Amino acid sequence: MGDHGGAGGSRRRRTGSRPSSLGSGGPAAVAEEVRDSVASPDVGAGGDARALARDKNGDARVGSGPLELRCHRLQDSLFSSNSGFSNYRGILNWCVVMLILSNARLFLENLIKYGILVDPIQVVSLFLKDPYSWPAPCLVIVANVFVVAAFQVEKRLAVGTLTEQAGLLLHVANLVTILCFPASVALLVKSITPVGSLLALVAYTILFLKLISYRDVNLWCRQYRAKAKTASVGKKASGDSTQGTISYPDNLTYRDLYYFIFAPTLCYELNFPRSPRIRKRFLLRRLLEMLFFTQLQVALIQQWMVPTIQNSMKPFKDMDYSRIIERLLKLAVPNHLIWLIFFYWLFHSCMNAVAELMQFGDREFYRDWWNSESVGYFWQNWNIPVHKWCLRHFYKPLLQRGNSKWVARTGVFLASAFFHEYVLSIPLRMFRLWAFTAMMAQVPLAWIVGPFFQGNYGNAAVWLTLIIGQPMAVLMYVHDYYVLNYEPS
Amino acid sequence: MGDHGGAGGSRRRRTGSRPSSLGSGGPAAVAEEVRDSVASPDVGAGGDARALARDKNGDARVGSGPLELRCHRLQDSLFSSNSGFSNYRGILNWCVVMLILSNARLFLENLIKYGILVDPIQVVSLFLKDPYSWPAPCLVIVANVFVVAAFQVEKRLAVGTLTEQAGLLLHVANLVTILCFPASVALLVKSITPVGSLLALVAYTILFLKLISYRDVNLWCRQYRAKAKTASVGKKASGDSTQGTISYPDNLTYRDLYYFIFAPTLCYELNFPRSPRIRKRFLLRRLLEMLFFTQLQVALIQQWMVPTIQNSMKPFKDMDYSRIIERLLKLAVPNHLIWLIFFYWLFHSCMNAVAELMQFGDREFYRDWWNSESVGYFWQNWNIPVHKWCLRHFYKPLLQRGNSKWVARTGVFLASAFFHEYVLSIPLRMFRLWAFTAMMAQVPLAWIVGPFFQGNYGNAAVWLTLIIGQPMAVLMYVHDYYVLNYEPS
Repeated sequence: MGDHGGAGGSRRRRTGSRPSSLGSGGPAAVAEEVRDSVASPDVGAGGDARALARDKNGDARVGSGPLELRCHRLQDSLFSSNSGFSNYRGILNWCVVMLILSNARLFLENLIKYGILVDPIQVVSLFLKDPYSWPAPCLVIVANVFVVAAFQVEKRLAVGTLTEQAGLLLHVANLVTILCFPASVALLVKSITPVGSLLALVAYTILFLKLISYRDVNLWCRQYRAKAKTASVGKKASGDSTQGTISYPDNLTYRDLYYFIFAPTLCYELNFPRSPRIRKRFLLRRLLEMLFFTQLQVALIQQWMVPTIQNSMKPFKDMDYSRIIERLLKLAVPNHLIWLIFFYWLFHSCMNAVAELMQFGDREFYRDWWNSESVGYFWQNWNIPVHKWCLRHFYKPLLQRGNSKWVARTGVFLASAFFHEYVLSIPLRMFRLWAFTAMMAQVPLAWIVGPFFQGNYGNAAVWLTLIIGQPMAVLMYVHDYYVLNYEPS
Repeated sequence: MGDHGGAGGSRRRRTGSRPSSLGSGGPAAVAEEVRDSVASPDVGAGGDARALARDKNGDARVGSGPLELRCHRLQDSLFSSNSGFSNYRGILNWCVVMLILSNARLFLENLIKYGILVDPIQVVSLFLKDPYSWPAPCLVIVANVFVVAAFQVEKRLAVGTLTEQAGLLLHVANLVTILCFPASVALLVKSITPVGSLLALVAYTILFLKLISYRDVNLWCRQYRAKAKTASVGKKASGDSTQGTISYPDNLTYRDLYYFIFAPTLCYELNFPRSPRIRKRFLLRRLLEMLFFTQLQVALIQQWMVPTIQNSMKPFKDMDYSRIIERLLKLAVPNHLIWLIFFYWLFHSCMNAVAELMQFGDREFYRDWWNSESVGYFWQNWNIPVHKWCLRHFYKPLLQRGNSKWVARTGVFLASAFFHEYVLSIPLRMFRLWAFTAMMAQVPLAWIVGPFFQGNYGNAAVWLTLIIGQPMAVLMYVHDYYVLNYEPS
């Protein structure tokens, strides 16, 4: 109930943020007057000539006493809609402060409850069961075989010693093996850990997508070469002379292929845009970020997610729905924070570091998905390498073959759902289709969010599905894995 | 990892929010081209004449194959500072979603832990110990005696049957009694409850401030009348003739005084601005808000604050600091929400309802304190009735007597601290000076926040002190009250 009367410092700001539609000159001028007298302490209480002189408009109450007596004026409260006031800038700061405080409390509560659980050594056990057997790195090294195979096929196709049909057959065989070989190894070799197997499968998936792109682009080049030959033999000479760029058969070198394999993109191109030099300070910053965020992710998972997930097993078993929801919401916060850190770590730190090292020029690994107002916009903008690949090697070819946009779109989601299931089910050795369902659910979700939520509401809906959807899937998998492996049957 | 390729609906938006400082014409044009080909499914993979024709700038790679092969361009990631990107609009929505989710979880956890604790009947016991004795309402009714006393003194002063000195003496005696009488009743009468006693003391405090204002304004009117008489007797006639307004001695009626006593302001004025009519729908909305928010406050206090406070007693006794902080942060959320609701309930719903009923025109009961970037701005804008009173009857008179601004400001805080302590210590029957200290701490706090935190940081600092400071004071009082009343000594 106490107010302090000094009006010095913040007067300027208050005047700036005052409602502009108040009064019609008369009262506003009086208000200005009152505020002036507040600011200048020399104005006495016994009547002020200057104020009297100015008070010409409306009902002058000279008879009722000195102007000092007037301290009210006809006006609305700011929350009343006809006050015209709309400056709620402070609310954003309020949100930020409340968020930080609530999560500081959660973090402190967690520390009190569980003590410090962070243990970097423990992480090693995720990758290694038997220290004399390293199945996952071996798998990744073996992947080179498939790279060489694809290269040899392309080499023979370029000089014509292999027909297009035979080339296609060999490529398909190679690509199918890329998917089946690591899967069977992961399922059969007992010493492989789920995390090691997951990483190996992700590496093979990336290779699979890259080799499809490599094959497609080389095929397009051959088609173009054939067209150019038949159409205009004369024009060809001038086109080929562009200096510094590589044209079709010259690109078929191991050096070129391996550059593509390690480059942070899934789409092959004969002449990648290159950055002029390696910026050492930029690279160092990215490397430090990689190191720091890796530590942070491990610490958050160990300290925050694991205990929360462990606590969720009982409600899940008892099918206690209100507790399941409570656990889900509790898991949502650390899960979402870790996902955000993971996003930054992978798409900004890691990819930029690799690109800087390789002088790879195109750094658009993500677009502004945080502003997405529809589910579609999110999927098109959060993971640009995959989005670009899908567009170039899946969506557009499907459209070209006369499929409708709707079919092509669903096809993309189907493929994506397949790969999500592939890299999750095989390492965990259980087939539950949660990841597949989650990906396929994006199609109807886009229908729901699209027309019903627009603008900021659409954006909030996208955030909500991100924040809630992921921990749901995580809980599903962990629960099933727990039941399968640790439950006394 | 799945992306979907349809670029139809959200392309417009994406283009709108793209970084504007990318490229220098050349690459941007190519990007536009790529995006065009994304949008139009009729563009084939086997080369596109339109695209070739447009690609005139920079290194044209006609020889390296069809334009389709080019899908990368030299560009920075959005998070890199030299991308020039700054559209993080979605972050606000993220904050809101996260806030709602975290608090939904807290609420659900609370329900699971404690069940439903809301009990409107229990509230009655807060006001009533003995159903045959109503000390608090009796106290409030007795307050009329002081109103009548002040009126009689003013009446006699106006006609001159009382000297100014005698009037001042009588007023001071009356005002001192207004503070001492309810305090002694609250301390001596056993059947009064803390809540009842608190409300009675608040009513007496309001009356105290109002009667000071009444006395001051009437004094100023007499001084003005005396001045006007001696200075210019001739001019007086024209001034007095303003129709519809009341001039000095005519205002001394019970009707006028009681209008002021019930009006939602602490500053007396002879001619209050009046609203033209009672807007029935506006009044009804405010009354419904009053009803609803009262219920909500009671429910939140019973369901959320009381159990949290009860759980805080043990850590406080054990002096377990990390747990005390955890409890403090846990209490901060419901306490802050209840305070926000209380603010809206009192300053918007109740005061506007009363003002509407009384056709009181000045509805500025609060200003935009939520944007305050300094502690001073907050205190000057959140409670306008008190702020206005302090400015008119305390701060400015102090300045006029030659005190410095700094002294006057500290004086206002001292008075405010005294009244905070007065309405809290007496009902609780313990004198701990927590409220006094909290109010006085605002002076050094303003020094700290002022120069070190500016703009949004200052705003966040003000929010932080609000969110953290209040539950700290609440915990202090509750802890001491608990120890004093329920602890087995």
